[in-house]
Amino acid sequence: MAVITDIATRVYNHGFRIDPIVRTLLDTDFYKFLMLQLIRSVAPEVNATFGMINRTKSVRLGEIIDERELRDQLDHARTLRFQKNELIWLAGNTFYGVKQIFKPDFLEWLANFRLPDYELHRTADGQYELHFEGKWCETTMWEVPALAIVNELRARAAMRGMSRFELDVLYARAKAKLWHKVERLRRLREEGPLKIAEFGTRRRHGFLWQKWCVEAMQEGLGDSFTGTSNVKLAMDAGLEAIGTNAHELPMVYAALAESDEALARAPYRVLEDWSQMYYGNLLVVLPDTYGTTAFLRNAPDWSARWRGFRPDSKPPIEASEEIIAWWRARGQNPRDKLIVLSDGMDIDTIEESVRALRGRVELSIGWGTTLTNDFEDCAPDDRNEMLRTISLVCKVVSANGRPAVKLSDNPEKATGPADEIARYRRIFGEAGVSAHPVFV
Amino acid sequence: MAVITDIATRVYNHGFRIDPIVRTLLDTDFYKFLMLQLIRSVAPEVNATFGMINRTKSVRLGEIIDERELRDQLDHARTLRFQKNELIWLAGNTFYGVKQIFKPDFLEWLANFRLPDYELHRTADGQYELHFEGKWCETTMWEVPALAIVNELRARAAMRGMSRFELDVLYARAKAKLWHKVERLRRLREEGPLKIAEFGTRRRHGFLWQKWCVEAMQEGLGDSFTGTSNVKLAMDAGLEAIGTNAHELPMVYAALAESDEALARAPYRVLEDWSQMYYGNLLVVLPDTYGTTAFLRNAPDWSARWRGFRPDSKPPIEASEEIIAWWRARGQNPRDKLIVLSDGMDIDTIEESVRALRGRVELSIGWGTTLTNDFEDCAPDDRNEMLRTISLVCKVVSANGRPAVKLSDNPEKATGPADEIARYRRIFGEAGVSAHPVFV
Repeated sequence: MAVITDIATRVYNHGFRIDPIVRTLLDTDFYKFLMLQLIRSVAPEVNATFGMINRTKSVRLGEIIDERELRDQLDHARTLRFQKNELIWLAGNTFYGVKQIFKPDFLEWLANFRLPDYELHRTADGQYELHFEGKWCETTMWEVPALAIVNELRARAAMRGMSRFELDVLYARAKAKLWHKVERLRRLREEGPLKIAEFGTRRRHGFLWQKWCVEAMQEGLGDSFTGTSNVKLAMDAGLEAIGTNAHELPMVYAALAESDEALARAPYRVLEDWSQMYYGNLLVVLPDTYGTTAFLRNAPDWSARWRGFRPDSKPPIEASEEIIAWWRARGQNPRDKLIVLSDGMDIDTIEESVRALRGRVELSIGWGTTLTNDFEDCAPDDRNEMLRTISLVCKVVSANGRPAVKLSDNPEKATGPADEIARYRRIFGEAGVSAHPVFV
Repeated sequence: MAVITDIATRVYNHGFRIDPIVRTLLDTDFYKFLMLQLIRSVAPEVNATFGMINRTKSVRLGEIIDERELRDQLDHARTLRFQKNELIWLAGNTFYGVKQIFKPDFLEWLANFRLPDYELHRTADGQYELHFEGKWCETTMWEVPALAIVNELRARAAMRGMSRFELDVLYARAKAKLWHKVERLRRLREEGPLKIAEFGTRRRHGFLWQKWCVEAMQEGLGDSFTGTSNVKLAMDAGLEAIGTNAHELPMVYAALAESDEALARAPYRVLEDWSQMYYGNLLVVLPDTYGTTAFLRNAPDWSARWRGFRPDSKPPIEASEEIIAWWRARGQNPRDKLIVLSDGMDIDTIEESVRALRGRVELSIGWGTTLTNDFEDCAPDDRNEMLRTISLVCKVVSANGRPAVKLSDNPEKATGPADEIARYRRIFGEAGVSAHPVFV
């Protein structure tokens, strides 16, 4: 019954100053790379400030997470560089069926990339203010690692002092819970086509747990599991890296607009620039930055020929119906089109959406928070509360010193100074906008 | 992200001929040692044959378990000797509050002990016939390892071909399931006293799983978890080793009785001999070998002064009420007495029994099969069926060539040749006997 202890490993672990949360710059969402290449091309000198916002005010992160630990993790992330094998993989891998999607000059630039500095301080109301200032093409890369770091530090704080055994039960329950969801998805797949990808890097409980979740999806769903947004996991597991673009593109374009007319045109200029660089399955519209209804009403006809849409802040079926009707009105067959649903999806809304839309449109689910961070009822008592996901986001707040604004289909998600929000609302209108509580 | 592989361990594991199920002679039930010391003292030359019986005929073990593998495991167990540190622990440890319970000459004899030979063949109905012939003081020690080996080989067969991931989910679910039971026991403990021990070696899913179950009970129940019947686990975890005696004692005594009168007296002669060697908390009567009602009616008054009873084949509350009434009739206060319930207890019957008897008698639960081998609904589809516990026992079948008989309170559990069963029934009567299905 002898257990051989690997003394070298044990001693090496003793020497760790910290247990790093982000260990490679590839541990981020794929869309960041697509956007980064575009930003480098069209706005290499633009400055953009990103800021982290905890929308779950009741959870006082400044009192839960030690500032020293947070700084250590952020500092560690700043020491990272892309490794040679990672750059070779980015150059040589096929993404969305496209070879050499990343150009040699972009990859050369990446080779010297490092995360820029950060500004951190605790606020009077027990939160952290965390900002990243500098070139957009550098600050943008903080979004995902910053969120992953804060979320994992909070999870570590929640688990501190738990016995080895309590932790064992915690993970056993979380595994049993997730597998139950996978089984529901298997039944959903038996009824008809299902495509679902993992989108949970930013909200994950931790890297190893996310890895387990991805393995569970692979094991349980086979081809119906289409990939992961996490580039590192995609590389290691030979999965498709999934994702296209985010609100920061129209938000910065809009912030930089010199007139109301230019502002109204900004969301479509993003699409124009995007389609200069990418094509095919990568042409996915994110329509809700200033309201989906307004976006569709004024959208150029050529945008109806894009591969699909990713509605992000309306109830998913309602948003999809609106887009399907719009495609029809623009002479497109929705069955040839893709809708990606990735806004706070959980197993119930996944089932509902798939059953409502399957066969009428190509549907792909991006499953985030409740895939990679659902520990509800897995921990004893107070720990359960401490492990409950919070609504933490890291958004662009200004570009070249001008405030960045998001209206969204849900006024609860609007961000920006009040006067600017009012101006944007005047320009884009408020058609189709209605409030829903934001959980994740 | 480097993982250091311990190459030496890896290569060493490659060299294993088999993964042994029983790795030490201490991996058995504690009562075997108490009985063995008695057998060595009072019947050192008696021959006794033990045989394994699968009462769950629908499960064809001969088709599930490879004969070669079974022989390898049994052969491996025969290579084992007590290790020096194990003998020192048996000599130096306090059992049931008694020091030096095992005498020096017995320990010296143990130092040379090895399991005797076995006879194995497959039967026409797809079962194994497994017999152990020889001195009682040697064959008796096969009971627990033989059962543990066959049960674990069946579990291994059920899990063969499952992916690493499926196994991960299987154990996660089993852990979550067991912890749910532990939580029910915690609530039961909040209502009043609770004493419960682990008795599941023979029916366990596997050694490592049993170890996890014991750790779960320790972690969850603290002092209410009183120990384990498994001597190896007791030694390693610093737990109390629990158990006293089994049916084989009255069965062999009865088989050797030279007259009907001697047969009627046999169960009480066991108690006489037992009390010559042991005292205090070790004086626990197992009354059901030839029917509890008959046993109590004819029991000598001094047996009412023993520490307690372990009813074993009647419904637990019914049996306890019968014994409580008998104690009262013999002038004893049941509150000073111990009842041990260990026959096929599950979480429901544990709760019921504890709530019905607590405060009226000292109660101790011996929890076996559904503690260490409950994988119900933990595996996918057909594997679930293959992991369902079977009713496998290893009983004495003859002593010095004369058939051994058990009547029990439940005729479903009666064993022995029909004519002998009839003779025993004539002598002991059938008062208080009624049939119940046997699940475990």
